[in-house]
Amino acid sequence: MGTVADRLAALGLTVPEVAAPVASYVPAVRSGAFVHTSGQLPFVDGALPATGKVGAEVSAEEATELARRCALNVIAAIGSVVDLDSVVRVVKLGVYVASAPDFTRQPAVANGASELMTAAFGDAGAHARSAVGVAVLPLDSPVEIDAVVEVRD
Amino acid sequence: MGTVADRLAALGLTVPEVAAPVASYVPAVRSGAFVHTSGQLPFVDGALPATGKVGAEVSAEEATELARRCALNVIAAIGSVVDLDSVVRVVKLGVYVASAPDFTRQPAVANGASELMTAAFGDAGAHARSAVGVAVLPLDSPVEIDAVVEVRD
Amino acid sequence: MGTVADRLAALGLTVPEVAAPVASYVPAVRSGAFVHTSGQLPFVDGALPATGKVGAEVSAEEATELARRCALNVIAAIGSVVDLDSVVRVVKLGVYVASAPDFTRQPAVANGASELMTAAFGDAGAHARSAVGVAVLPLDSPVEIDAVVEVRD
Repeated sequence: MGTVADRLAALGLTVPEVAAPVASYVPAVRSGAFVHTSGQLPFVDGALPATGKVGAEVSAEEATELARRCALNVIAAIGSVVDLDSVVRVVKLGVYVASAPDFTRQPAVANGASELMTAAFGDAGAHARSAVGVAVLPLDSPVEIDAVVEVRD
Repeated sequence: MGTVADRLAALGLTVPEVAAPVASYVPAVRSGAFVHTSGQLPFVDGALPATGKVGAEVSAEEATELARRCALNVIAAIGSVVDLDSVVRVVKLGVYVASAPDFTRQPAVANGASELMTAAFGDAGAHARSAVGVAVLPLDSPVEIDAVVEVRD
Repeated sequence: MGTVADRLAALGLTVPEVAAPVASYVPAVRSGAFVHTSGQLPFVDGALPATGKVGAEVSAEEATELARRCALNVIAAIGSVVDLDSVVRVVKLGVYVASAPDFTRQPAVANGASELMTAAFGDAGAHARSAVGVAVLPLDSPVEIDAVVEVRD
């Protein structure tokens, strides 16, 4: 099956540099067998590709692609504290979608992230997930995603 | 005290079939001693009994009952990966209430779920909880709930 | 470095009484090496110092101070189940900011909490964090914060 980096490369993706938090927190923490990541925005080279609410300024299709990018940044955050190939299970994704009041397709948006995690981690990528529509996100980002994963001891 | 199923039966409840996620995620993941569930909507036989925002289209009382149903579906999700009687502690409930901007009784709604978890798991059911009012939920559901529980090794 | 209580005292702070939940949940649960807290509001002596949405009725600066208070209450919740000096790592903070639709500075608000955790726990205080803007919070609180921490066995 190859490594996580191999699987991402097959999709034309590389693990980006992890965004350095500007404040007194870190991209991810390993604690025992678990890694918890910070909420990741869909930064590409330090900029948000889009801003606004999904269902208003941002389409569901665009948001799905942004969720995929959030997931790639989640992977980068995990990789900042452990070897990505030591991940034995993606346990949970939290998917926050900045939503217009009548936008109810958060699961479709979240699938952009879920599918990337499955592609990257194979059988270990099948995860539990909560997707909710929030009022507004940092920097007016349309999507934010965090994760809990289990790593080999 | 009997089993979890016994306690639910005393309330006239049975554990429903777990809703099959339509995408690349699963209802719950066991990782070490912990089970994390996906966010559960108040499906009954595959349909939402109500939709809309709590404090607008949905009353607090209706939402409390929906939260109880979410909790029953959380129990079903847990039961899809472990024996329910192996749960030694309900650790955390995350309660998301789709809320009208002036609705601030999320704790009352969440009590519908908390009370069912306590009834089902007895002393092991006393949990930490976060209840927040979100903009909108998948399928316009009024409530979504997820959980972390600890299981016997 | 002294104890957590010492570090807080150097900031002129003491650990408050933990707010007793009114329902069937508890301020915090220890499970294995982890403590999960309930979502904490910025209560001071049982009352909220301010209510409303950040970016509307409440300024970012006021909200940052309220987040700091939430963090102090998170510490109280942790202290209700373990010795605070047994905390070896603050793993994750969840920061929920009740936000006006155009308020996007949730990270600045969350820094009020992050900085207090770092001050209180020293090197063990560097944590992962998710900050989101929600529609409305219990009792119209501007901020709610929960945490996962790791404790010594």
